[in-house]
Amino acid sequence: MKNIVVQKFGGTSVRNLECMRQVLNNVRRPLANGDKVIVVLSAMAGETNRLIALARQWSDHPDPAEMDSLVSTGEQISVALFSMMAKDEGIKCRSVLGFQIPIETDNSYGKARIEDIDSEKLLKMLEIDDVLVVAGFQGVDAIGRITTLGRGGSDTSAVAVAAALKAEMCEIYTDVPGVFTTDPNICAEARKIDRISYDEMLEMASMGAKVLQIRSVEFAKKYNVAVHVRSTFSDEPGTMVTQEDTVMEAVQVSGVAYDKDQAQVTLVGVIDEPGVCASIFTPIAENKILVDMIVQNPSKDGRTDITFTVTRADLDATLKLIEGLKGEIGYQALLSDKNVSKVSVIGVGMRNHSGVAAKAFRAMRDENINILMISTSEIKLSCLIEDKYTELAVRTLHQTFVG
Amino acid sequence: MKNIVVQKFGGTSVRNLECMRQVLNNVRRPLANGDKVIVVLSAMAGETNRLIALARQWSDHPDPAEMDSLVSTGEQISVALFSMMAKDEGIKCRSVLGFQIPIETDNSYGKARIEDIDSEKLLKMLEIDDVLVVAGFQGVDAIGRITTLGRGGSDTSAVAVAAALKAEMCEIYTDVPGVFTTDPNICAEARKIDRISYDEMLEMASMGAKVLQIRSVEFAKKYNVAVHVRSTFSDEPGTMVTQEDTVMEAVQVSGVAYDKDQAQVTLVGVIDEPGVCASIFTPIAENKILVDMIVQNPSKDGRTDITFTVTRADLDATLKLIEGLKGEIGYQALLSDKNVSKVSVIGVGMRNHSGVAAKAFRAMRDENINILMISTSEIKLSCLIEDKYTELAVRTLHQTFVG
Repeated sequence: MKNIVVQKFGGTSVRNLECMRQVLNNVRRPLANGDKVIVVLSAMAGETNRLIALARQWSDHPDPAEMDSLVSTGEQISVALFSMMAKDEGIKCRSVLGFQIPIETDNSYGKARIEDIDSEKLLKMLEIDDVLVVAGFQGVDAIGRITTLGRGGSDTSAVAVAAALKAEMCEIYTDVPGVFTTDPNICAEARKIDRISYDEMLEMASMGAKVLQIRSVEFAKKYNVAVHVRSTFSDEPGTMVTQEDTVMEAVQVSGVAYDKDQAQVTLVGVIDEPGVCASIFTPIAENKILVDMIVQNPSKDGRTDITFTVTRADLDATLKLIEGLKGEIGYQALLSDKNVSKVSVIGVGMRNHSGVAAKAFRAMRDENINILMISTSEIKLSCLIEDKYTELAVRTLHQTFVG
Repeated sequence: MKNIVVQKFGGTSVRNLECMRQVLNNVRRPLANGDKVIVVLSAMAGETNRLIALARQWSDHPDPAEMDSLVSTGEQISVALFSMMAKDEGIKCRSVLGFQIPIETDNSYGKARIEDIDSEKLLKMLEIDDVLVVAGFQGVDAIGRITTLGRGGSDTSAVAVAAALKAEMCEIYTDVPGVFTTDPNICAEARKIDRISYDEMLEMASMGAKVLQIRSVEFAKKYNVAVHVRSTFSDEPGTMVTQEDTVMEAVQVSGVAYDKDQAQVTLVGVIDEPGVCASIFTPIAENKILVDMIVQNPSKDGRTDITFTVTRADLDATLKLIEGLKGEIGYQALLSDKNVSKVSVIGVGMRNHSGVAAKAFRAMRDENINILMISTSEIKLSCLIEDKYTELAVRTLHQTFVG
């Protein structure tokens, strides 16, 4: 069998005929090398939103299984159009839908998880055609109903197919040249990262560096698939997401991320007894509210303050929930603030370099930026700040660590 | 198992939210009786044409398999939207795509024929849900690729599902109240037919009385499924298409049809020897040109005239083909006329009533309508005339036979 290259193109890369021609040029490159190519496509930009808007007209609470069957047509249209165009150009290819491989998933409609991909079927199809144009974002569950993998799911489709075929490389084509050290819109010094580890990418992606779907990176890490994030509209190499290596560890910080979608909630004077945290966060989780940062101060006189952050959209629901628990928890006051944001520095090198935190705090202090909350992991340091300082903090941290 | 009712709704019946609500009202009727319902839907009016137009932009010669995968999204969208709406109303239902049953077809993409329907799977699904919303027009071939059944194929889907489930009735809902004795736009006296035989319906359908896809009628005849053609927007009974019965035979003529898409070709002075017809019509058939009427005059001096009709779009190709055969066939002149049309009277009663032809010819003569060609079958008499007389001829024949 020849070498197999997996390429994924997002919605902006297939948004019209012109862009699809550009995609075809990218496909020709490995074809010219004699490789077989699997092209994973998203729906044309705007199509998924159009279908969701239709569903909202038809139903107040669209059934999730019907929703998946509905929105999966977006990718079905992309792959059919691309395949007929490529065939006109003499390329041996065909479109492949999720159920045709199949890409088997669980039945969590709208956010299904891939359970298995029939790689033998794919290999057989590759004996007949040189290019398989696979519909991203979609799979099929055990009873044959169409599922979707959640927003950005085509990234996961591509990485999963690459993993199933043990392809050496999964190329994710997008409308930016790669992953940046921070948001170029905020910081003119931001530059493209050449190599980044899976873990760093996970932290970057979850912070709004929206280049890759988080789940696709988890998949890539699990199956050790090298992911090359690059531009559809340029030949330049992009960012390689791979296993950690020693070069990466020599660098303290790989990137600076931020997230403005944060709201802070503080329960003042909570009686500090075993199980109090559980009684706060269990009902929050049951209501599907995602909590990000959590800080608890050492208790004083048997009482403590507990502070955490949620997304701004979830703030009202969270406050209502906590108010309902007042009798049970017995806090003295409930405070909240929507005008906060989170800035983070990320890097596998932090593990071996103490002093990153201190250096970050000094840099913030020099700009008079007050730190409201701190949370740390092995490869990440996050600070909650007043959101008006977000851009300044990002630029400051970027200059301090990335330069 | 409860009684199963199959209902099919066309593109105009599902063209928007308002119309789909009307469809839901029709579904409630058998549901209220405690029946299970299979609803077969077409794509929303205009959607299939939109998708075909897209394909034409993307490809000069769209691959037929990709085309089928593309246009089948139209029905996929209809059934998802309808199902989520019905679920909101508390109806236990789900959408079902061609591959999910499956509706197995051959691989003649764009005009596939149904080979098998897994009725057990459908019955199992009906144990869980009260309403199955089946995507019309689509099936799946032996290798799992999506196929479509040709224009109007949703009628065939509905009748085939009804046949597979041995349902007693297949209701075809459309935007007209039923099958008419002739075109009401031409003849004010046209009235709805209460009952019509499969064979009569076949002749009516093939003549431009475009209420039912011809293939669906063949299917209904083969499996003896009674088809009720009726309006989505009214409770009035429509036209029942069933086996012939004695009541039908008492009526000489059931309807008058016409077809303006006719062009006449005459080969003058063809040498009349065995095989000459074959050498004319074999190459025509090989070029996928459909010949309708054929007339050969008795030969004189070893030469004869052969006249036939094709659609107007095929005339130029036909003439070119015949000119290329001049050496082989040896005719004296080649004549053609695009300004002709065909009018037909149809009825199973004609078999038992001689004199229908004579009566038709007299009626035409009384209006000074010249007859160019005649062709007859057991239940049909067709005359080719100058097309400017079409409407007059239809009204005259309708008055003569239907009244």
